[in-house]
Amino acid sequence: MALLSKSTLSKRGLGKLKHKANELLSRTLDQQVTLAVTGLSRSGKTAFITSLVNQLINEGNGAKLSFFDPVHNGNFIAAKRVPQKHYHVPRFDYDAAISALTSDPATWPEPTHGISELRLAIRYQPKNSILKYATDMATLTLDITDYPGEWLLDLPMLKQTYQEWSQQTHGLMTSKPRDEYSKSFLAKVAQLDPFAPASEELLAELAQEYTALLQTFRHELGLSVIQPGRFILPGDLAGAPILEFFPFANADNIDANAYQNATDDSVIGMLRSRYSQYQEQVVRKFYREHFLRFDRQIVLADCLKPLNKGKASFADLELAMSMILESYQYGKSGIFSRLFSPKIDKLLFGATKADHVTPEQHGAMVSLLNQLVHQNKNQLNYDAVAVKTLAIAAVKATNSGVSKHQGNEVPVIQGRSLAQSELSGTASVFGEKITVFPGAVPSELPRDNYWQSNSFNFIEFAPLSGLNKHQCLPHVRMDQVLQFLLADKMM
Amino acid sequence: MALLSKSTLSKRGLGKLKHKANELLSRTLDQQVTLAVTGLSRSGKTAFITSLVNQLINEGNGAKLSFFDPVHNGNFIAAKRVPQKHYHVPRFDYDAAISALTSDPATWPEPTHGISELRLAIRYQPKNSILKYATDMATLTLDITDYPGEWLLDLPMLKQTYQEWSQQTHGLMTSKPRDEYSKSFLAKVAQLDPFAPASEELLAELAQEYTALLQTFRHELGLSVIQPGRFILPGDLAGAPILEFFPFANADNIDANAYQNATDDSVIGMLRSRYSQYQEQVVRKFYREHFLRFDRQIVLADCLKPLNKGKASFADLELAMSMILESYQYGKSGIFSRLFSPKIDKLLFGATKADHVTPEQHGAMVSLLNQLVHQNKNQLNYDAVAVKTLAIAAVKATNSGVSKHQGNEVPVIQGRSLAQSELSGTASVFGEKITVFPGAVPSELPRDNYWQSNSFNFIEFAPLSGLNKHQCLPHVRMDQVLQFLLADKMM
Repeated sequence: MALLSKSTLSKRGLGKLKHKANELLSRTLDQQVTLAVTGLSRSGKTAFITSLVNQLINEGNGAKLSFFDPVHNGNFIAAKRVPQKHYHVPRFDYDAAISALTSDPATWPEPTHGISELRLAIRYQPKNSILKYATDMATLTLDITDYPGEWLLDLPMLKQTYQEWSQQTHGLMTSKPRDEYSKSFLAKVAQLDPFAPASEELLAELAQEYTALLQTFRHELGLSVIQPGRFILPGDLAGAPILEFFPFANADNIDANAYQNATDDSVIGMLRSRYSQYQEQVVRKFYREHFLRFDRQIVLADCLKPLNKGKASFADLELAMSMILESYQYGKSGIFSRLFSPKIDKLLFGATKADHVTPEQHGAMVSLLNQLVHQNKNQLNYDAVAVKTLAIAAVKATNSGVSKHQGNEVPVIQGRSLAQSELSGTASVFGEKITVFPGAVPSELPRDNYWQSNSFNFIEFAPLSGLNKHQCLPHVRMDQVLQFLLADKMM
Repeated sequence: MALLSKSTLSKRGLGKLKHKANELLSRTLDQQVTLAVTGLSRSGKTAFITSLVNQLINEGNGAKLSFFDPVHNGNFIAAKRVPQKHYHVPRFDYDAAISALTSDPATWPEPTHGISELRLAIRYQPKNSILKYATDMATLTLDITDYPGEWLLDLPMLKQTYQEWSQQTHGLMTSKPRDEYSKSFLAKVAQLDPFAPASEELLAELAQEYTALLQTFRHELGLSVIQPGRFILPGDLAGAPILEFFPFANADNIDANAYQNATDDSVIGMLRSRYSQYQEQVVRKFYREHFLRFDRQIVLADCLKPLNKGKASFADLELAMSMILESYQYGKSGIFSRLFSPKIDKLLFGATKADHVTPEQHGAMVSLLNQLVHQNKNQLNYDAVAVKTLAIAAVKATNSGVSKHQGNEVPVIQGRSLAQSELSGTASVFGEKITVFPGAVPSELPRDNYWQSNSFNFIEFAPLSGLNKHQCLPHVRMDQVLQFLLADKMM
C-alpha cells in the first residue's frame, strides 16, 4: 500500500466513522426477511420464484399487484437483485429461467436440484410506521431460498427411531400405489437375518434398489412422500454409507432385547447406525443451517395431478401435508425443543396451476387445499404461526372465456397444450392451441364413491408466447402472495 | 424391551464390564493410521489404492511382499475390509475397481471424483515390542482417504492475498503452455474497470470461461497446477458464487489505496471477497476436516507423460511438487500455525508407471523424482517429516525382457498398448501386444538443450489379461511402499 500522510489518515478515519454511523442507523430501520420456497409433486417452484422476482423488479412496467398494499398505496419504490447472503450456496438462476419463459416458443424453466439462493433489495417509503420520521426510504432485504420438498419431509424422521421409521415406510410400501413396485425388494429384505454379520456390499446393493424405487415413486407415480429425500438427490454424498440403508421389513417381529444389544457390524445394527447418522448429519444439519433461519415458508402443491391420478396419489398428498404441518408444531411433538424451534411466523400453502382450471373453480381449489391443511388442526398447536392457503398461478399459461356447448354457455380456458414428452423431462415439443373445460375441482376431500364416479382430466399447458423479460409476467394472485409474505414488513 | 430378572441383569452387567475392559486394553495396544492418497496428472490413484488393498487382503495367495517386514518376518496374520470411519464420505469402490482389472479384456478402473474412504483392519503378531507380553494378536486399523491432487495444491492459496494469487496465476497464464489458450480470456478481463459496480452475471460468465480453461489445462495439456481446484470438480458447490471468481489480470497496476477501499459491490471487491470466502469455506474446511487428521501422505506423480509432452509440461510438474512441499513446511511459511499444524510424519512420493519403462531405467526415474523433491530442500524445514521417493507400478502391466537389435542385446518391455480413445476417457478399445524400448529416462532435471535433442515416446499400456481378484496383483515395489508407510506401526 502507498504511504499516506497523517491528515489523509485522519480524514479516512472520519469518513469511516460516518459510514459506520449511517450503517448502524439503516440496520435499525431496515427489515430483513428470509423466505423459504419449497414444493411437492413438481409444483413449479422455479416458475414461482422467477415470477416473484420478476413482479418485484419490473414493478411499474405493467405490474398487476393491486392486492399488494405497498404497490396499491404507492409506497413501493423499486427492487433489484443484489449479491446473495451465502457464497457457498448455488445461486438461483433467474436469468436462465426468465430466458426460457420469454423464448420463442416459450418453455417452462429447468427444475433446480438441491438448494439455491437469491437476494432482492426492495426500496419503499415507510408510511405507517415510526420509520417515516427517520428516513424517506427504507430497504427490505429479501433472501429467497429454494430447496427440495423432500428435505422438508425428512424432518419428521428426527423424532422417529429406526424401528418406527421402518414400520411406517414398510406400511407405505405394502399399500397402493407403491405395493406392486415394492414386492421384489421387500422379498429380498425379508430374507435378511437381522443379527447376521453385515456385508457392506449387500447393503449397498439393496440401498441402490430402494433408491431406484424412490425414483420411480417420485417421477413415475408423482408421489410426494419420498424418504429419505437425500437418496434421490445425493449430491456430494453419492456413494457414502450414510445413504446406504433402507427400511427393515419385519421391524416389528424383531426381539426387542436382541435389537437393543445388536452391534454396529450386524445387519440391523449397521442399518440402525446409518439411519441415526442420516438423522444427525443430513436432516439435523439442514435443520440447523437452513430451516432454523427461515422467517417465512411457502409450500407449493399441485393438487390437480393427484386428482388426475386417483385416490392413492391424493392420499399421498394428504400424508405429505400432515407431515409438513408436524414440523411447525412445537411442544407436544418433541421434534424440536423450544430453544431450537424454528422462527417461521408465516406459512403459506399455494395450490399451483390455478390457471389450469376455469376461474369459477378457484374457490373449490382453495377449499380443497384448506381441508388438506386444516383437517388435523385441532391436534395442532401452531404457536403463532399464521397459516394461509391460496390458489395461484405464478406464470399464467391460459386465457379464460366462455364457449357455447349444446346451447349452454360453459366456462373454458385456452392455451397451448404441453406434449407428453415435456411432462417427463426437458424436451420442448409443444402441442397446438386448445380450448377446454378441464373439469370440476371437488371442494372437499373426495370420498371413496367420488373416485369411482368422477374422472378428471387436467391438461398441462405450455407458457404463453410473447412474454417479455422486462415486463411483468401474467399471474394469478401473486399479489396476494406478496401481501401475505411481505406487506407487514414494509409498513 | 422385555422385562429381565435381576440375575440376568447383573450377568449382563458383568459381561458388559468385561467387554469394556477388553476394549480398553485393545485400544491401548492397537494402532491406527490414516493414510492419505493423492495424485498429480492422472497418476493412477484408483489403481494404486486397489492394489494396496488387494496385496494386504490376499496376503498368502502368492503375495510378493518380501520387502515388507511384517510379511517377511512372518508377523502378518491377515487383513480385511471393515466399515469406514466417516459415514458421510463416499466409500472407495474397491469392488468396481478390482472387477475392471480382472475382467476380460482387463481395463483400468474408472477414476474417482472428489474424496472417498476405505478402512482395513490388519491383524499381526507383535514381535519386537512390549505388546508381545500383553497379547498374541494386535490390530492396525488403516484408514485410506483418496482425494484429488488439486485440493492439496489449493493449500498454498491460504497464505496468498487475492492480489498475490492473481499475479502468480496471471504469470502462469501468460507463459507456455497456457498462454495461447488464455489470450481471449485475459483480453476480456483487461477490459474490466476494477472499481465499477460489479455485474454478478458478467463475473459468472467470466468465471465459467476461466473454469473451461482449467479443464483444458487439466485434461488436454495434462497439467498439475490447477487453481482453484474445486472449480473443475465443484460437486454441491456448482453454481455457487464462491466458485465465481478468477485472477484479475492487472492486479499489480491497481492503485493500492483504491484497492483497500474498494467495497464488495465493485468488480475487484467482489472478486476479492469471493476469493477470501473460497479460502475459508473450501480450502480451510478441507484443511480442518481432513488434512489435519492425516497421519501419512502418498503423492503419486506420473513423470513420464510430462517428459513426453516437453519442457513446459515438465516445469509445471516441478512447480506442483514445490507447492506440495510448501504445505509440509512449518514455521517460516506462515500457512499453518504450530497449533494447527498437520500431524503427518511420513510423506512418500511415488513415481508411478515404473513398468512403462525398462527396469534398468528405474534408478534414473527415482533420481529424477528425488531432484524434483529435494531441489529446494535447503530452504525447507520439514520438522520431523520423513520424505521418501520410490519408482512404483501399482498394477504391473508389462513384462520385461531382452531383444536383439542390430546384433546388440537391448532391454525391452512387452504389453498391450492402450488405444488413444482410452487415454481421454472410459472407452475400452485396446491395441495389440507390442514389444518396445520406450526410451531412456533422464536421471537429472532436463536442461534446455536436453529438450531440443531428446524425444521421449512412453506408451500407455492396458492391464495384463488373466488377473484374478482373489490373488495378489503383479506390482513393482508396492512392498516398499507398505514398508515405509506401515511397517513401523506393526512392530
